[in-house]
Amino acid sequence: MAHALALAARGLGRTWPNPAVGCVIVREGRILGRGWTQPGGRPHAERRALDQAGDARGATAYVTLEPCAHHGKTPPCAEALVTAGLSRVVTALTDPDPRVSGKGHAMLRAAGISVTENILSDQAYRLNAGFLRRVTQGLPFVTLKLATTIDGRIATASGESRWITGPAARRYVHALRLNHDAVMVGSGTALADNPDLTVRDMGALHQPVRILLDRTLAHAPNSRLGVTARQHPVWVLHAPEAPAEAQDAWRGTGARLLPCPTQGGRLHLTSALRLLAAEGLTRILSEGGGTIAAALIAEGLVDDLIQLTAGKLIGAEGMPALGPLALPRLADAPGFRLHGHFSIGNDSVCHWSRG
Amino acid sequence: MAHALALAARGLGRTWPNPAVGCVIVREGRILGRGWTQPGGRPHAERRALDQAGDARGATAYVTLEPCAHHGKTPPCAEALVTAGLSRVVTALTDPDPRVSGKGHAMLRAAGISVTENILSDQAYRLNAGFLRRVTQGLPFVTLKLATTIDGRIATASGESRWITGPAARRYVHALRLNHDAVMVGSGTALADNPDLTVRDMGALHQPVRILLDRTLAHAPNSRLGVTARQHPVWVLHAPEAPAEAQDAWRGTGARLLPCPTQGGRLHLTSALRLLAAEGLTRILSEGGGTIAAALIAEGLVDDLIQLTAGKLIGAEGMPALGPLALPRLADAPGFRLHGHFSIGNDSVCHWSRG
Repeated sequence: MAHALALAARGLGRTWPNPAVGCVIVREGRILGRGWTQPGGRPHAERRALDQAGDARGATAYVTLEPCAHHGKTPPCAEALVTAGLSRVVTALTDPDPRVSGKGHAMLRAAGISVTENILSDQAYRLNAGFLRRVTQGLPFVTLKLATTIDGRIATASGESRWITGPAARRYVHALRLNHDAVMVGSGTALADNPDLTVRDMGALHQPVRILLDRTLAHAPNSRLGVTARQHPVWVLHAPEAPAEAQDAWRGTGARLLPCPTQGGRLHLTSALRLLAAEGLTRILSEGGGTIAAALIAEGLVDDLIQLTAGKLIGAEGMPALGPLALPRLADAPGFRLHGHFSIGNDSVCHWSRG
Repeated sequence: MAHALALAARGLGRTWPNPAVGCVIVREGRILGRGWTQPGGRPHAERRALDQAGDARGATAYVTLEPCAHHGKTPPCAEALVTAGLSRVVTALTDPDPRVSGKGHAMLRAAGISVTENILSDQAYRLNAGFLRRVTQGLPFVTLKLATTIDGRIATASGESRWITGPAARRYVHALRLNHDAVMVGSGTALADNPDLTVRDMGALHQPVRILLDRTLAHAPNSRLGVTARQHPVWVLHAPEAPAEAQDAWRGTGARLLPCPTQGGRLHLTSALRLLAAEGLTRILSEGGGTIAAALIAEGLVDDLIQLTAGKLIGAEGMPALGPLALPRLADAPGFRLHGHFSIGNDSVCHWSRG
């Protein structure tokens, strides 16, 4: 199952709206087939592993999620496992999708296959957190990236931010982008940095969706995001009342426009994320800036927080990583659990998870 | 030598103005004696190890610093090693003190003892950084502690700071205090937190000197620092023109007053540290607040930086860990090298060293 989970992780960021699943087929201690959900979500992991195995009669399949039982764009995997003559199926999680939810396991058992459930379910839960959150809550899993100096600054007073962290840490961020369905920035960061938000230098065959949160459509359609919108998807969330000419200009770049409710003169982020989940996104990496970060935190929308710290100091005039939170007391400070930490180049990386 | 260095470290914070030295005496693979500089700086490590060894004829001594050659408050250790009949002495560092500086090694060689120098000198240099800085530059080694939220805040807007980090991290800070000669805070922190700055719950038999930087003597003599000044030393650095009645009141608590030059309406920190080094201090832990931290950084006085990060977020209204630095460009940001990192409870600790 650990191996199946590692295979599943290869699909993260590329299988949405489907889950990233891994499957290993074993007979008498030999691996006959290995598969993971392919880009776009099909073929499924089980189909790939069965195809690789050829004759899988009497074998055991380790699958990171309950095999599907419904006829969608592909025939149900549970049926394929039955047809292949497997004698045992081990799964990590029950699929919460109401079209599956226990029916896959039941179909296997009805065919006389021995089924063992909930093996390494904690790891599988973490791996599938995006898929599970979308199916059960209609929200994507959100990773907030904060790359700061030791004193928590993301730029000097004049806005200079390139570069705080070193090249190895920046490369790590590109890898992070790659295992998310989408990367997201606010208009402040877009205007300040004119980023293209693509994954570079990683042998990437796929790019995450690039999301711009820009209530008034202040960012220029001839920005890097605008001029590359036909090469790789750009989705722009804006207030319905954003200037019509700006909407037309952005639409003309090939970007997709998504009108989003506002609250207190800002895009309402919970609504924005619901919209994005409805469009199929399961894992979103928020890359800035401090206003979006604070709003995500304040609305309780951050699941993982990746903190990169460079060995530099900017001082109190520098731009803070996080905007105001208006906390009444220290006890109200949002809390995160330290999940792991490591160093990369001369930078430190802490991985925090929702407390 | 690694063992001698570990023994030496036991003395850190207690031997000033003397160096913390370790000594191991070995003959035919057996350890005959082990010693380290005792609290107050005497007896020296070599004397302790020789006393424990008894008959050390023909043995090898591993000493973390060149044995002293001058008659001070104790007879020279080089002489004691000669008298004891050792055949070989291995040292890690040459003592930069002009009263020793090569004379100890020469005295040993003149007596026919085989001498090997500079073994594990990097580690020994780090261990003795405070002693070496004081002797060569007239300044103490300064460790800056910053205990912050993920977003670099040390308190809420209203000043609430207890507690940002967890109990294990706070205990770690007490251990840090214990291996420094002194702990230091500014008047802002003293007024806000009324700390006593003692080491608690560590079985401590000794307390570091407690230093208050308070230009105008605004902190009350009946504060925790004032009322405990007769139990454990408190040194107060103030402007010469601080109100005479406040000077008298503080003197009345048993604290020691040290007038210090000012610059731009603040205590001049380089002068303050020179004064403290002249008084014998070799290792100082600066515990706050943001103004002192920024001044130390701006004047290039910070050697090590211990960053403790708690899994909390306060937001931009919170008090920053560091005051303004007035950097013209990002390239001017002071840099530190990542020396190590670990987790303690739910907090992360990064150890940065002068770049």
